[in-house]
Order: sequence, then structure tokens, then C-alpha cells
Amino acid sequence: MKLRVVLVEPKWDVNVGSICRAMKNFGASELFLVKPKAKLGVEAVKYAKHAREILENARKVNTMKQAFEGCTLVVGTTGIIKRFGKRILKKCVSARELRKFLGKKDTAAIVFGNEEHGLSDKFLGECDVVAFIPSSPKYPVLNLSHAVAIMLYEVYATEGEKQMKELPAPREKLQRLEKLFLEFAKGNKTIRDPVKVSTAFKRILRRARPSETEIQTLFPAF
Amino acid sequence: MKLRVVLVEPKWDVNVGSICRAMKNFGASELFLVKPKAKLGVEAVKYAKHAREILENARKVNTMKQAFEGCTLVVGTTGIIKRFGKRILKKCVSARELRKFLGKKDTAAIVFGNEEHGLSDKFLGECDVVAFIPSSPKYPVLNLSHAVAIMLYEVYATEGEKQMKELPAPREKLQRLEKLFLEFAKGNKTIRDPVKVSTAFKRILRRARPSETEIQTLFPAF
Repeated sequence: MKLRVVLVEPKWDVNVGSICRAMKNFGASELFLVKPKAKLGVEAVKYAKHAREILENARKVNTMKQAFEGCTLVVGTTGIIKRFGKRILKKCVSARELRKFLGKKDTAAIVFGNEEHGLSDKFLGECDVVAFIPSSPKYPVLNLSHAVAIMLYEVYATEGEKQMKELPAPREKLQRLEKLFLEFAKGNKTIRDPVKVSTAFKRILRRARPSETEIQTLFPAF
Repeated sequence: MKLRVVLVEPKWDVNVGSICRAMKNFGASELFLVKPKAKLGVEAVKYAKHAREILENARKVNTMKQAFEGCTLVVGTTGIIKRFGKRILKKCVSARELRKFLGKKDTAAIVFGNEEHGLSDKFLGECDVVAFIPSSPKYPVLNLSHAVAIMLYEVYATEGEKQMKELPAPREKLQRLEKLFLEFAKGNKTIRDPVKVSTAFKRILRRARPSETEIQTLFPAF
């Protein structure tokens, strides 16, 4: 499995540096920075310590799309899973559960929002999986570099445990399938709210993590 | 269960501040600093964020003994479990395994060495349990605040999982028992290396985490 860390508009150099170190600690090396605000100078280098090469090879991009190129799975992260006592995102899994969704042949992007806003609800809705770190309701918001370290630790600590072995289906194929389903739902008069129904379909499909072979078997035309 | 974080001679204010935040994130509040070298000023406060009260209530002490007052369990931590290819400490458990050793009624101190040296082999030998965080052999040494965050996360994430429910035996009782055993070993001529044998005894005893009732049942005189 290949892990890519994607930081969206990170603000503080100390965090970016510390994240490089945590990545090397847990065997990840690909870092993408979407519109970084942090100046990656002396402080970042200091906190990266022996992971300076990750900092130097970090790719700066302007769009999320560029950050996910070549990925088979996009994992969003959030510190807030409840708002006004209600769970916002139904597809949230804990950091520990996340491991079940990562296959041996995945190239997975784990995406972290910036220090102030986190990721938008809209973006989280578009991710394949959304993961959160269980924490105290009295102060649930973690330091960004701590959140990255814990997520990577969880994924690293799973090695040797049961993982999906087959090649996961490419995201494009799943997206095409979802679009097809939406068109079908819209055309079917017994379905009152086609968007809602196809969102549910999408959620189930993504959680199931179908393999390339399965999609091929189900829809040879894809 | 009550968790106490003990930092031995911490050097950097940013780390101490970040640790306070991680503690509040995972429901720990007791911080002990043994001979801190860090100046706990503006930077520490900045990184503690909404956990400023933990920083302000941190207790500075001069000896390890003072830091463990009232504790039923002392957990040492180390980033290095192998030296020249050999496992140094036989009683090492992973952060995830650590949870098994923590009972509901424990007051456990988790001890972290400073940013440069970690904890000494001698001190680790005296701990009840030694825990490590699995990490890449290419760069196994974590940032201090990351190590604390991951350890606390692991303990926090276990809530609801199976834990020891009985009151653990006080450390003093175990120490008395160990001393008694050493005396017995020294007096027994069939035992060639009494220190080695009693170290093994100690290790087994500590890993078993006997309850107060068990020790009472075994040795009513204690």
C-alpha cells in the first residue's frame, strides 16, 4: 500500500515540518500541499529533523484534483463528527476502523484540512471514506501534526493484520457507475428523490471497496 | 483509571505545550515535570491552546520518586527496543498491548524521557511495564509530543474494551514481595544467580498485574 498525505492550505511551518518527521516514522513519503500558506523555511526544516527529504520533495499543487492523481482512495479527516448533538457524516469511521478500508494495493490519499477550518462538509461528502480520531468531547480538536501522526500510526500498526488483497477498482470506474445509477434513478418514476437515493448508493459502494475484478465481473463494459 | 504524564527533564517549550493539548484531547490532566529544562513561557502557552490549565497546574519535582507518589503503576516508554539487533528489554509491550495492563482503578504514570536521551536502561529496568510505539526502522525516533499523543490516544481509544476491574495491588506490596523473594534466592544454594532469578520473578509478577485481593489472599501478612 502507498500512502499519500495531503495537507490543504496548511498555515504553520512547525506543523508541516513535524508532519514530515511523523511520515518518515511511519513509512510514508509522499507529501502534497494544496495552496500552502506556511513558509517552509528554517523552522520547517528544524522540525522535520531527519525527514528533510520529504519536505524537500513535497509537491505544491493548486487544486485538490491534482493532489489525488493516481490515487485509488481518498480519505477525508475531521475532528468534528457531531454538531448540535447529531452525527454530521454518516460515513465516518474511526482511525482504527479505517484500516479495514485500505487494501494492500491501494494508493491512498489521507487529506487534512488547515489548522483553523478543517475540511469543508462539501469536500468530506465527496471523499470515499471519512475518518476521525476519537477524543474528549471537552476538547476534541487535535493539533494538526498530532492528528496526522495518529492516523499514520494506526495505518502502520495494522501491518500484518487482515487487509484487502485484490487490486481496488479505479475511482473513475466507480464514478462512472455512480453516474449511471443516478441517471437510472432519475428515469425511474417510483423513485421520489433520485439524488438522495444515489447518494446512498454511492456510500454503500465506496464502503464496500469493490475490487477491479468485481467491477469487471459485474460490468464488463466498464 | 487516572493517567499521569511524567516528563523527565523536557527541553523544549513547544513540546511541553503541545503535550498539554494532547492530554486534554484524550482526557488526561495530571502533568508532572521532573527537573524541567524548558522555559514554560509564551510559546508553551501558545501550543497548549485550550489546555492552558494543565500547563499552569503542572507539578515540578526534583526526583522520580516524587513523580510517582500515589501511583499504582509506572509505565516507562522507549523508542529503541533493539540495539545491535538484540531486543534490549524483554518486558517491552507495544502501545496497543499496554492497554491490557491498565486496570480501571489504576493511577498510572506514563513516563517519557527527554528529547535527546530518552529514559536510561537502568530506569526502564525499574518500571512495571515498558511500552514502545511501533515505527519504521529507518527512523524510529518520534517527536516527544507525538509519542505522548499516540500513547494517550491508545489508552483513550480502549475505553469500553476489556480492562482489569479489581483494585491493583499497591506497588509497595509488590516491592516488598520482590525483596522477600531475592532474600530467599540468595539463601538457596541451588540458585546460581539469585539476582537474575529474582529479576525474572519481578518481571512475571509485574506483567501479571496482581490485584490487592490476590496479594492479600496469597500473603495475608502483607
